[in-house]
Amino acid sequence: MTIRIRYRARLAYLGTEFAGWQIQKNAPRTVQAVLEAALQRFAGAPIRCLAAGRTDAGVHAEGQVVHFDLPVQREEQEVRDGVNAFLPADARLLEVRRAAPSFDARRDAIWKEYLYRWSREAVIPPRAAPFLAPISVSADAARMRAAAEALPGTRDFGVFSVRRPPAGSSVRTIFSVSVLEQGPEISALFRGNGFLRGMVRSICGVLAEVGRGRFPPARMSELLETGNRRLLAPKAPARGLTLMRVGYGEDGF
Amino acid sequence: MTIRIRYRARLAYLGTEFAGWQIQKNAPRTVQAVLEAALQRFAGAPIRCLAAGRTDAGVHAEGQVVHFDLPVQREEQEVRDGVNAFLPADARLLEVRRAAPSFDARRDAIWKEYLYRWSREAVIPPRAAPFLAPISVSADAARMRAAAEALPGTRDFGVFSVRRPPAGSSVRTIFSVSVLEQGPEISALFRGNGFLRGMVRSICGVLAEVGRGRFPPARMSELLETGNRRLLAPKAPARGLTLMRVGYGEDGF
Repeated sequence: MTIRIRYRARLAYLGTEFAGWQIQKNAPRTVQAVLEAALQRFAGAPIRCLAAGRTDAGVHAEGQVVHFDLPVQREEQEVRDGVNAFLPADARLLEVRRAAPSFDARRDAIWKEYLYRWSREAVIPPRAAPFLAPISVSADAARMRAAAEALPGTRDFGVFSVRRPPAGSSVRTIFSVSVLEQGPEISALFRGNGFLRGMVRSICGVLAEVGRGRFPPARMSELLETGNRRLLAPKAPARGLTLMRVGYGEDGF
Repeated sequence: MTIRIRYRARLAYLGTEFAGWQIQKNAPRTVQAVLEAALQRFAGAPIRCLAAGRTDAGVHAEGQVVHFDLPVQREEQEVRDGVNAFLPADARLLEVRRAAPSFDARRDAIWKEYLYRWSREAVIPPRAAPFLAPISVSADAARMRAAAEALPGTRDFGVFSVRRPPAGSSVRTIFSVSVLEQGPEISALFRGNGFLRGMVRSICGVLAEVGRGRFPPARMSELLETGNRRLLAPKAPARGLTLMRVGYGEDGF
């Protein structure tokens, strides 16, 4: 009988050189592909790995959560360090834990936190540039905050999804959106029970236009009320977005 | 008559993919080489560029200062944005100013500030890893601080230089060394009137051994007193080091 031990892991990656999380047919470099390759080298057998959130190309993660089964029982640290030894420098398992055999990183997630960051600097230093979208020097965080107030609640967010999903399936709950200002940086921290494909970047595109003064702050509630996609702005660039944390019921992992 | 307008610029770069600041014969990728190439494309003529500090391979800069002459008079912002357009993503002019024709980024520097960073984390996240040297989880910042107290003052620092320089030429003044602790990170901020080649990384190698408990804190003063290079530790890795700022007399640039 083959043993199968389920593990959960917290994973950080730089989205810059990845075509997103999910393995794709035409074999671009994805996080899932490099992680499954590292797991296979560690375990000596093909290992499938599933994530809480399927981040898009260019989107970063500081606290993605994944689960996988190993055909061998190993100490948690040994799995973490052993798999990391086979991962490229832009992806790292930060923490590995044994999990219940039924644990599912995607299905069991209760909330996710995404951070979007803009910089008002005329020149963004090379060190920060991979994580910041530019916004005009005069962008107004207070206007963006006013627009963001329309978001929290249980609503149909279909207008913000990449493709309009069937009615009803695009209802999500946003618990909070905090627009923060620190020096030249403006950021928006989203916490919700789930986000539609492209939803955070679509909302951030609107927030940026509000900040620049091109849209009124009321545009956000108008979008939610009317569902009129012609009122949208272009999606905000992927590099500004980071999946920060995923919350589960039993602990804070 | 050809005009020659002198400019000074503040420059940031990621050291990771550079073989240091200075142009070399065998043509590796250096910061000076890419900057002079960008200046040439901007100005349409070969431009020489000199820096306050010749950082080694792998060492980062957030506030390197350089000077160069242009055969054309241009607005400061125009120079900054025009040259940046020809620079690779890992180097950026943050600020450009007209300077007196006699201004010399190296000779006129009054002080320089270098920051060295270590992480005690078991796994360093990919985002921070290019800027942090690993140190053991149990490394003790208080011991490192005690060792660093031996450094400030006007002394012969020759024991810490890559090659022992002629007697007398290795006297420098360190104004302050602050050992800081923030979560799992330990850092050391050096301010001095100048630093010998390899000096900060050599000192940091000793500090790390003190932090790990392998050297007593008194090792630092012993090194300064005896000049005995056999008491040294290996140099700390380049990626932990960043040239933060260079100070000049007339302003804070």
